[in-house]
Amino acid sequence: MSYSKLNSQIIEELKTIVGDSFTFIDSETLYEYGKDETEDFEFPPEVVVKPANSVEISAILKLANRENVPVTPIGARTGLSGGALSVYGGIGLSLERLNKIIQIDEKNLQATVEPAVITLEFHDACKELGLYYPPDPSSWGSCFIGGNLAYNSGGPKAVKYGVTKDYVLNLEVVLPNGDIIWTGANVLKNSTGYNLTQLMVGSEGTLGIITKAVFRLIPYPKHVLTMLVPFESPEKACEAVSAVFRAGLTPCAMEFMERDALDWTIPMVADFNIEVPDHIGAHLIVEVDGNDLDVLYKECEQITEIMESFGADNVLFADDEAQKESIWKLRRRVGEAVKKHSIYKEEDTVVPRYEMPKLLKGVKEIGGKYGFKSVCYGHVGDGNLHVNIVKGEMSDDDWNNKLSAGIREIFHLTKKLGGTISGEHGIGYVQKHYLDIVFNEAEMNIQKGVKNLFDPNGILNPGKLFV
Amino acid sequence: MSYSKLNSQIIEELKTIVGDSFTFIDSETLYEYGKDETEDFEFPPEVVVKPANSVEISAILKLANRENVPVTPIGARTGLSGGALSVYGGIGLSLERLNKIIQIDEKNLQATVEPAVITLEFHDACKELGLYYPPDPSSWGSCFIGGNLAYNSGGPKAVKYGVTKDYVLNLEVVLPNGDIIWTGANVLKNSTGYNLTQLMVGSEGTLGIITKAVFRLIPYPKHVLTMLVPFESPEKACEAVSAVFRAGLTPCAMEFMERDALDWTIPMVADFNIEVPDHIGAHLIVEVDGNDLDVLYKECEQITEIMESFGADNVLFADDEAQKESIWKLRRRVGEAVKKHSIYKEEDTVVPRYEMPKLLKGVKEIGGKYGFKSVCYGHVGDGNLHVNIVKGEMSDDDWNNKLSAGIREIFHLTKKLGGTISGEHGIGYVQKHYLDIVFNEAEMNIQKGVKNLFDPNGILNPGKLFV
Repeated sequence: MSYSKLNSQIIEELKTIVGDSFTFIDSETLYEYGKDETEDFEFPPEVVVKPANSVEISAILKLANRENVPVTPIGARTGLSGGALSVYGGIGLSLERLNKIIQIDEKNLQATVEPAVITLEFHDACKELGLYYPPDPSSWGSCFIGGNLAYNSGGPKAVKYGVTKDYVLNLEVVLPNGDIIWTGANVLKNSTGYNLTQLMVGSEGTLGIITKAVFRLIPYPKHVLTMLVPFESPEKACEAVSAVFRAGLTPCAMEFMERDALDWTIPMVADFNIEVPDHIGAHLIVEVDGNDLDVLYKECEQITEIMESFGADNVLFADDEAQKESIWKLRRRVGEAVKKHSIYKEEDTVVPRYEMPKLLKGVKEIGGKYGFKSVCYGHVGDGNLHVNIVKGEMSDDDWNNKLSAGIREIFHLTKKLGGTISGEHGIGYVQKHYLDIVFNEAEMNIQKGVKNLFDPNGILNPGKLFV
Repeated sequence: MSYSKLNSQIIEELKTIVGDSFTFIDSETLYEYGKDETEDFEFPPEVVVKPANSVEISAILKLANRENVPVTPIGARTGLSGGALSVYGGIGLSLERLNKIIQIDEKNLQATVEPAVITLEFHDACKELGLYYPPDPSSWGSCFIGGNLAYNSGGPKAVKYGVTKDYVLNLEVVLPNGDIIWTGANVLKNSTGYNLTQLMVGSEGTLGIITKAVFRLIPYPKHVLTMLVPFESPEKACEAVSAVFRAGLTPCAMEFMERDALDWTIPMVADFNIEVPDHIGAHLIVEVDGNDLDVLYKECEQITEIMESFGADNVLFADDEAQKESIWKLRRRVGEAVKKHSIYKEEDTVVPRYEMPKLLKGVKEIGGKYGFKSVCYGHVGDGNLHVNIVKGEMSDDDWNNKLSAGIREIFHLTKKLGGTISGEHGIGYVQKHYLDIVFNEAEMNIQKGVKNLFDPNGILNPGKLFV
């Protein structure tokens, strides 16, 4: 794709649309909005605009189409696949002013929100009314609901409650041509036309800009019990996971952390006071939730028995809220800890649950072959393993020139195991060169056809998803 | 759209593709495959073919594109929106030979099936292994999984467990151009490209032909308790429904039947031995399920209290499996009973749950205005009300010329209440003239754009969904 550069006339027109005070061309702002949480990338837009509503966004997109300039939707910039980076410059469209919880409808167990509502704040507002919005990505304290929609975010609770897509009923979307549509209706069941709601979810801001979302909510479970289960063998830990589900149990969290992930993160969590003996190779965090404590205790017993049959060490029940909180703090900060520790690349592999031990073993073997170390953690209950490849002792030359062959091998393995290359982070800028591994030519053609239908001039979030 | 008629050369070519013995042009077969369960419509294809696999289907679609002849995918012909009717003649493509459960993968809690597997048979095969595939449309004893996918079918259990779309992980699809693709991967979480899986589900056989489906399964709940709750006022029954959910309870079925539906159906169910006193205007069927009986009894008590606070009459607990079965037989046969009783039209309205009493009241008022009687029943827990408009005493002239204005009014009401015009039956042939009520011009454009992207020559299932 080739785009026009912004000129002063376009900037003036943008100012007319969103107002002078919401149009930014100072280098500090451009730099700030040109970064997200993906490695060390930096792609500043040529202008940052902060529209107030869908009507302004519609006008911006019409202008961009007319002038052939790219538009990159920007949320909280917490993404891990570079989806918010303005890789072709152009207009950085920040959604931050669309930040209202419009309604929590207690009678219908639904909520309508704007995209820049912070996920945790939405969760807490629902919780106050006894209602539950389960998706809880690690970054939920800072990420936006709109970004969760764009990447179909998951989180620990997905294993029982599903991911973002499972709660969306209806979306207001500004299409690249400026049309403002609703994708569905505010109903629990809908067989009226094509499911454009689910087509928009996970489309990484490449098909339209979501300006309102209607979610279904469920009753908030009354009790949660948390266990920390240490294993000598990381592979055995993974094997235990699928056994729990095969026994008919459905925990509400089933997380995995390798030893290195533990060692690197524990120093960052001051109140984590659980000792990890030297022989421990991995931890599982297991949670159950529900309304009846007796039932939950029974479930914990059953899970413990299964875990022990796979060689679990001493299972720890979190005593109180503080200990629970410290365990989750540990889990949520792993990504940050890895980032601090070394140059790294994060792969968001996902396979059918039972194949997880094979994936873990394969990742280590591939690492051995290519000379890289990997630190693995993630949502093993869903078969979703975050593989952090750390540069460590690897030479710059190997890192820059040989690593991608190793990553390709990891992704070929996920495909062979029935899985794919991203479970919740998206393809974005950093994984697009690997998409050929999971899509054949016909599959790629229809994917690109969808993009071309919605955005024939390719002005919306270019450089993402497709090469 | 204008299509070519079939000629002997095309028929010969079809015989070469699927074999002589699977190509039918006798009028009996054409008549049989030209009907489904939608009113009294009859649209025979010019030829019926019964391919064995996706490769043969691919060859048929390539031929159809080359010769400009329409292809109508035909399943079990149990649909209620006329989706399987060959309204433009052409090739009737029966999927019936693709009828294998390919695998039930107990280790991963997944199953791979072909489209002509009967829903109940799939459910039972899973149940035998302790696994649960919840979607249970009323016709599940005869309908095909492929049809459930095409219309995103629901059923009573949807209120707790969701509809067909909520269990699909991955689909093998033959696109109209003959390309054979997989839409996703066999994983619980997927953020890899556009969600073509969910775009195919509910697309009514207009975007491609599904030839394999991978479903996730869940553990089969150990216990189910069933209650029959009579109300004098149908509207009060609907009000009670949303109160149950607002109290934090999640029944696994919450069905509604108006008095007429009861009276017409009871004579068809010999073993239904529950008396319905004269003053009763409606019944709710309420079920709870789970693994702990004590918890379920407690939930039943809570539900009973709520029901009574809305004026419920004597709540009946189903004593044994036989009584449970008779209650469900009654519910499942309502549609058939209405059909026997009069000429009718069935509308599949859906609104947010709390708006249900307003919908019911509105439907009756609109009936009064236009002079039609309606019999209502359905999945009120989901806000999904089947409105059966019966001809009864209405004149042929009024029925043929004035009714559609009344139906439009009902659909405008659903839209106003935040709902839409089909919850689970689809638009098909019979509701397509009402689609303008719920989609504005921009929304209709993008819906039609999707159709045009997948099927530029409009050969696949024409005359459905769009006018």
